[in-house]
Amino acid sequence: MQTRSEHDLLGDRAVPADAYYGVHTLRALENFPVTGTPISAYPELVAALACVKQAAALANRDLGLLDPDKADAIATACEEIRAGRLHDQFVVDVIQGGAGTSTNMNANEVVANRALELLGHAKGEYRLLHPLEDVNAGQSTNDVYPTAVKIALHFAARALLDTMAHLRDTFAAKAEEFTDVLKMGRTQLQDAVPMTLGQEFTAFAVMLEEDRGRLAEACALISEINLGGTAIGTGLNAHPAYAGTACAHLGALTGLPLVVAGDLVEATQDAGAFVQLSGVLKRIAVKLSKTCNDLRLLSSGPRTGLGEINLPAVQAGSSIMPGKVNPVIPEAVNQIAFEVIGNDLTVTFAAEAGQLQLNAFEPIIAHSLLKSLTHLRAGCAILAERCVVGITANRDHLAELVGRSIGLVTALNPHIGYENATAVAQEALTTGMPVRELVLRRGLLSETALDELLRPDNLARPHASA
Amino acid sequence: MQTRSEHDLLGDRAVPADAYYGVHTLRALENFPVTGTPISAYPELVAALACVKQAAALANRDLGLLDPDKADAIATACEEIRAGRLHDQFVVDVIQGGAGTSTNMNANEVVANRALELLGHAKGEYRLLHPLEDVNAGQSTNDVYPTAVKIALHFAARALLDTMAHLRDTFAAKAEEFTDVLKMGRTQLQDAVPMTLGQEFTAFAVMLEEDRGRLAEACALISEINLGGTAIGTGLNAHPAYAGTACAHLGALTGLPLVVAGDLVEATQDAGAFVQLSGVLKRIAVKLSKTCNDLRLLSSGPRTGLGEINLPAVQAGSSIMPGKVNPVIPEAVNQIAFEVIGNDLTVTFAAEAGQLQLNAFEPIIAHSLLKSLTHLRAGCAILAERCVVGITANRDHLAELVGRSIGLVTALNPHIGYENATAVAQEALTTGMPVRELVLRRGLLSETALDELLRPDNLARPHASA
Amino acid sequence: MQTRSEHDLLGDRAVPADAYYGVHTLRALENFPVTGTPISAYPELVAALACVKQAAALANRDLGLLDPDKADAIATACEEIRAGRLHDQFVVDVIQGGAGTSTNMNANEVVANRALELLGHAKGEYRLLHPLEDVNAGQSTNDVYPTAVKIALHFAARALLDTMAHLRDTFAAKAEEFTDVLKMGRTQLQDAVPMTLGQEFTAFAVMLEEDRGRLAEACALISEINLGGTAIGTGLNAHPAYAGTACAHLGALTGLPLVVAGDLVEATQDAGAFVQLSGVLKRIAVKLSKTCNDLRLLSSGPRTGLGEINLPAVQAGSSIMPGKVNPVIPEAVNQIAFEVIGNDLTVTFAAEAGQLQLNAFEPIIAHSLLKSLTHLRAGCAILAERCVVGITANRDHLAELVGRSIGLVTALNPHIGYENATAVAQEALTTGMPVRELVLRRGLLSETALDELLRPDNLARPHASA
Amino acid sequence: MQTRSEHDLLGDRAVPADAYYGVHTLRALENFPVTGTPISAYPELVAALACVKQAAALANRDLGLLDPDKADAIATACEEIRAGRLHDQFVVDVIQGGAGTSTNMNANEVVANRALELLGHAKGEYRLLHPLEDVNAGQSTNDVYPTAVKIALHFAARALLDTMAHLRDTFAAKAEEFTDVLKMGRTQLQDAVPMTLGQEFTAFAVMLEEDRGRLAEACALISEINLGGTAIGTGLNAHPAYAGTACAHLGALTGLPLVVAGDLVEATQDAGAFVQLSGVLKRIAVKLSKTCNDLRLLSSGPRTGLGEINLPAVQAGSSIMPGKVNPVIPEAVNQIAFEVIGNDLTVTFAAEAGQLQLNAFEPIIAHSLLKSLTHLRAGCAILAERCVVGITANRDHLAELVGRSIGLVTALNPHIGYENATAVAQEALTTGMPVRELVLRRGLLSETALDELLRPDNLARPHASA
Repeated sequence: MQTRSEHDLLGDRAVPADAYYGVHTLRALENFPVTGTPISAYPELVAALACVKQAAALANRDLGLLDPDKADAIATACEEIRAGRLHDQFVVDVIQGGAGTSTNMNANEVVANRALELLGHAKGEYRLLHPLEDVNAGQSTNDVYPTAVKIALHFAARALLDTMAHLRDTFAAKAEEFTDVLKMGRTQLQDAVPMTLGQEFTAFAVMLEEDRGRLAEACALISEINLGGTAIGTGLNAHPAYAGTACAHLGALTGLPLVVAGDLVEATQDAGAFVQLSGVLKRIAVKLSKTCNDLRLLSSGPRTGLGEINLPAVQAGSSIMPGKVNPVIPEAVNQIAFEVIGNDLTVTFAAEAGQLQLNAFEPIIAHSLLKSLTHLRAGCAILAERCVVGITANRDHLAELVGRSIGLVTALNPHIGYENATAVAQEALTTGMPVRELVLRRGLLSETALDELLRPDNLARPHASA
Repeated sequence: MQTRSEHDLLGDRAVPADAYYGVHTLRALENFPVTGTPISAYPELVAALACVKQAAALANRDLGLLDPDKADAIATACEEIRAGRLHDQFVVDVIQGGAGTSTNMNANEVVANRALELLGHAKGEYRLLHPLEDVNAGQSTNDVYPTAVKIALHFAARALLDTMAHLRDTFAAKAEEFTDVLKMGRTQLQDAVPMTLGQEFTAFAVMLEEDRGRLAEACALISEINLGGTAIGTGLNAHPAYAGTACAHLGALTGLPLVVAGDLVEATQDAGAFVQLSGVLKRIAVKLSKTCNDLRLLSSGPRTGLGEINLPAVQAGSSIMPGKVNPVIPEAVNQIAFEVIGNDLTVTFAAEAGQLQLNAFEPIIAHSLLKSLTHLRAGCAILAERCVVGITANRDHLAELVGRSIGLVTALNPHIGYENATAVAQEALTTGMPVRELVLRRGLLSETALDELLRPDNLARPHASA
Repeated sequence: MQTRSEHDLLGDRAVPADAYYGVHTLRALENFPVTGTPISAYPELVAALACVKQAAALANRDLGLLDPDKADAIATACEEIRAGRLHDQFVVDVIQGGAGTSTNMNANEVVANRALELLGHAKGEYRLLHPLEDVNAGQSTNDVYPTAVKIALHFAARALLDTMAHLRDTFAAKAEEFTDVLKMGRTQLQDAVPMTLGQEFTAFAVMLEEDRGRLAEACALISEINLGGTAIGTGLNAHPAYAGTACAHLGALTGLPLVVAGDLVEATQDAGAFVQLSGVLKRIAVKLSKTCNDLRLLSSGPRTGLGEINLPAVQAGSSIMPGKVNPVIPEAVNQIAFEVIGNDLTVTFAAEAGQLQLNAFEPIIAHSLLKSLTHLRAGCAILAERCVVGITANRDHLAELVGRSIGLVTALNPHIGYENATAVAQEALTTGMPVRELVLRRGLLSETALDELLRPDNLARPHASA
Repeated sequence: MQTRSEHDLLGDRAVPADAYYGVHTLRALENFPVTGTPISAYPELVAALACVKQAAALANRDLGLLDPDKADAIATACEEIRAGRLHDQFVVDVIQGGAGTSTNMNANEVVANRALELLGHAKGEYRLLHPLEDVNAGQSTNDVYPTAVKIALHFAARALLDTMAHLRDTFAAKAEEFTDVLKMGRTQLQDAVPMTLGQEFTAFAVMLEEDRGRLAEACALISEINLGGTAIGTGLNAHPAYAGTACAHLGALTGLPLVVAGDLVEATQDAGAFVQLSGVLKRIAVKLSKTCNDLRLLSSGPRTGLGEINLPAVQAGSSIMPGKVNPVIPEAVNQIAFEVIGNDLTVTFAAEAGQLQLNAFEPIIAHSLLKSLTHLRAGCAILAERCVVGITANRDHLAELVGRSIGLVTALNPHIGYENATAVAQEALTTGMPVRELVLRRGLLSETALDELLRPDNLARPHASA
């Protein structure tokens, strides 16, 4: 293998000649053989790093701190990375010590070597354009890394917001389809009072929309960045205009409403925005899981379950049991939810472990959040496309269940009196006869009056007593 | 013991004659001997239940659904409870099955019996004023209970917000006191670059203010109530104007900006607002714990630790080690934080376990959130009053640490060049000599220039190079 | 109020004259107004503290380090406390800083003052018998407190083991009662193959017995104590024979198989045994919760759910819905489980936060574990007595569900062939007709052969094909 | 692309001609595009699946239920897979619905197609050897999958046990090296009493050995398998001798002490062994994290921290701060610990969500546990090799800290009296002078006597007073 020699404070090392990364990345590869998953697994993060490096170069150029030729080469290299090139050069492990230093170094080296090429030089000729002196100029891992992570989270959150909207719409369309399907509502798994299947599916849609609102709010918090704070937020060695200029460039490049944090010391050590975002993702997971639990329960059967709805079959359920079909899509989403809840705990531990002027554990925070965001997005997509869109209702069965439910008697309370209602309920439970039949047999209401009272419109929403 | 006889669907039972609660409460006492902690441990919850019962009675009176005399008696009974009377009659366990039914029944019975007394009747004469028919008229546990819990959470959250503001101010006052105290900042527990102790304490204050913002946002979510939805949110048997009227009364009674949820079916089953609030409390806990970790670390010693600040002594630390004083207040707050984080997980599990039209596990959600809110408030109070207010700085020691730190060399980088800076750092590390002395000895800067560069104003914030 | 004056390193303070606790306890009351729950809420802990103090006094007497009269008085005071007296004097908050120092000080003071009385002196005459010099002789909070906590956990765990055995027996008795009740088994909530209700309930009993085994193993770990290690486990100032002698006395007093840890430095800082115990309690909680979920699901209905079993009614379920009865006991146990899982997280955080030679957060560990143990015990007790013992089976309904299930066809596979089986399954699903009828109609098996194949004995366990 | 046509209950599909997997795997690929991580990421799991398939084939052959030629071909295919071939054909996502059905189907198809090739047939000729009829004969996903997962966990746990032993030995060797290095112990981050650095490192080694014991115990639980229980544990359609025969073959193939569970119905639905294992891994994580926290704290500095030990430099720490080196290896291990703790929560949620006769969420349980096991192993390896082995002690600094610590006074207590000890402590704290010097100056002890008392042997372990 062809190599080139690079140098760091520990000495000289041979780097593969065709590698865009350099000696610092090589050390990190040796130090952190943990998960086998490189940071390139998150294209959002690679793109975000390129955005930050580009914005910093442009700011340094504007302030006369970086040679325009170098700045242009760096910017072009970053544009290429943002367009999807060289992602395979972002090789450091997603779990790494050093508060993201290795990720920042990896980015510095790839950008520098690509910029060197663009300027007509060989990779590794750092005296002409240096990964730290030029690409990282005016920066510290401690402001670059959290800023890049926040931008990556924004990118991933936008994708999730879109997919949640699609799932919401899919539920809403089903709600429309089922708007007139009367069914029994249940509380504590016991028969309660009637509602429509449309109302049940509307609730799923409403929950998603509320969660989208929370996610959007959490994104607003991660729009506050600490770029320009350098090592600990005091901005030591940074030009007074650097933070504002770099932030403006970064906002333009990403299209995000970024702002410089009001107190950079606090912003540098604070993982609160990550905890908040993680908490919101946990909330989304909890609600999605509850929704999937409901879908699995309502479709239980086909013969010995609730059997109210049918989920589309997407694969054979069992080799040993002919014809068995399982709710595999909701089950997959349940598991994504459990993973997200676990990730939230990881984020919580990592955030609490921050000490003094920095949180050294942001890499696991970033890894956890990016996993949660991308897996939730995948879960919402398959739930919409491979499950909800194909759900059908067992209308006859639902109508029959309403007909023989004792819960109907609650609706008759104001009209036949509590005593009669209780007597009817007791007889219905003992004999198994429908409430409707018992009311007619006892002559408590005329068939016309009863049918009016039991109209879906009257059962499923508040109305003034006649 | 004198008793009176009461009746429910399971039969007759003797209730203590002087008890304001009745047979349903008695059953719950027998069914749930779990924690030994009655719901009266949360005065906020008892007051909130009284507010809801009062608002419902007023709404029912306004709509002609409840006799004005009864409504007035109920309202007066509720006023008394809100003023602190009869709290000892709220006896059901904080952990209870039934989705809060026992809590609602307990409230119905206490209010009914007190109202009966006010009307000149004996306790238990329910044919004259009935706990369910009158006090609970137009209500279901499923709308009353979550509404009362949300109001109780509001009350507790307000108290926490106030105490957090006090703690924030205490930190800010210390920051002001320490504004000119230069010290070394640390990242990853390794010496980094200088800052002021004032900046460090300002960050604590800023974090608290940010967390207050998040808590206020979470409170906005719990302003949305489902009163009027009755059993499952369809409003079955409710007067169409009831929800709005009751909400208006409740808003007036509590002084809270309450609104009726847009989709009552969704609102009845949704625990999302509780999960969100719990997530925010977890965030506050994480940050408070990090702050306490820092205080304990900075005050470690007195001889073999960092020894930068001194926490006030509030009790003897050890019997075996004479003179030892421990950071007991931050330690207590750490533990409160760990409890709150655990409570958040309990809330998460309970929320995920909701099924179909109701979450049956709101009692443990309420218990967990009220514990977290009240314990966090206690923690902030003791941290402010028994610790932060009395913190002093070891100014000489801090100055000495800055003087002999190698991290100073970072500030000289732009002025003596990276090569010289590195050489000075190496010699300082090997010989133990101060950077300042080495720079002067090597004639790299004049004493005047050096003193200018090492001025706190220049070290602790961004500035243009001379 | 009558007072006496006591002194500590912070100065003089007036203590209530009739209080058995002293100045250190008073400081702790002022420092930690957190939960309002005193340590006396755990009688196991108070008794365990008395055991440790008694054992230490006896060991010191044996080694000639404590005057026999003092030792006897201390031992008698401890005996009284173990018998239940003076528990109201253990007043410090369950959440406290100081690694348990306040709890130890509270115990020292109460024992000292009661011993002084027994010797005919007034409370507070510490020059005659001193809380630290005598009661705490040769001890440090850092060995006394974890030792006492472990003994308290043993006491609470024994009670839980007994109650779990009772619940196991209750499930086993039901399994016996239901041994011949055939029903459909379900996987992924979809109809699977037949089994007996007895098998289903046996599984609940088996799970409990396995969990009892794990709990017994975890208790073995907390039999290892660090008494004698003094401040950090080096045994500084301790007599070489003290640890062994004190442990022998403590074992005799408690009846527990206590041993001195092999490495006292490690044992003093290690919270691993607590984490392990907590993990096992979490496992018990998970399994109990799953069991309760199953009970609630199997008893769902009465008309629109699975309706396979009936839980006994223990209270009215709803005011608005006449006749509704809810599974309130399993719901309460679910919530206890969620609390225990949350407590496990609190323990995990507290254990991880230990630093260097000590874990300062054992008070919240003790509080969490004692809550979990006692609440789980309460949950098992009500589940056995107020729910499982009264469960009945809907035998006709279960038989009917088996009869019309398509899952039966799996059992016929080896006899009618996979092709015929599939065809029958398809027709059954489409037409709603029972598998049995379709097989007969198609002449695939004689009625005799079919009945033989569908015998419970053949369906519910492995057997050689005829 | 060349394809072949395959069929399942949903219809015909084109499968890539060179794929060893088939139509069921194809469906799963389409259904679960979640993480992008295929199950082949866990070679242990692929090998374990091959072991199970081989054992089942051998058992079926022994019982005359499978043609010997087919059985041999299946066995050979499995041997190849166990040797590392065809792993790239195990393509289904680690997060999948269906309780592991897709993983089982993937294995059935790969084995069948490779066996077909070995018999001289083309892939896809299932009429000659069928993935379900032959490879899966007598099996159900519900017994195959958990059995394979348990074996995979065994394999991964063994590797972890070995690496933990190596880390333990590395700590123990350092303890030996530091056996005579006296230092100050700390409790609650405050100076306590002396100990040796050897004792401190021995504690790390002891903790690891204790954790190894717990892990070995947890492995014993996962030696109990449910193979032979088929769909729900009743063994429907299984030969009575199958379970025992298959288990014997599996034990021989894997070298593991496997046993058939006593109650297969319980064993099929029970996730308790996974929860227990996960709890133990969490314990290991907690202790490793605490150890890393200590290493980072003890090595804090170089100038403004505790500075007691030095971790070897493994990479540059900062671009902006020349010469800074960070504790990146312990930081990586901390993050692995946080991930493992999060994974434990995921396992807990998934286990609790099991319903009735099966836990459908075992795929996320398997994924979480395998991640935890392999990442912990990686963490222990880098901690041993890249950190602990190179740790050095700052012996002079440690000696100096002991010399000027006030904590020394505790050791003099029995010799100079409590009053003198307190006076010395006070003066030392006020003046900053060493305890040793003050004692000599006051003439409380001769230099000889003092040196004897302050000998490491006497300070760091219990001894009888002279």
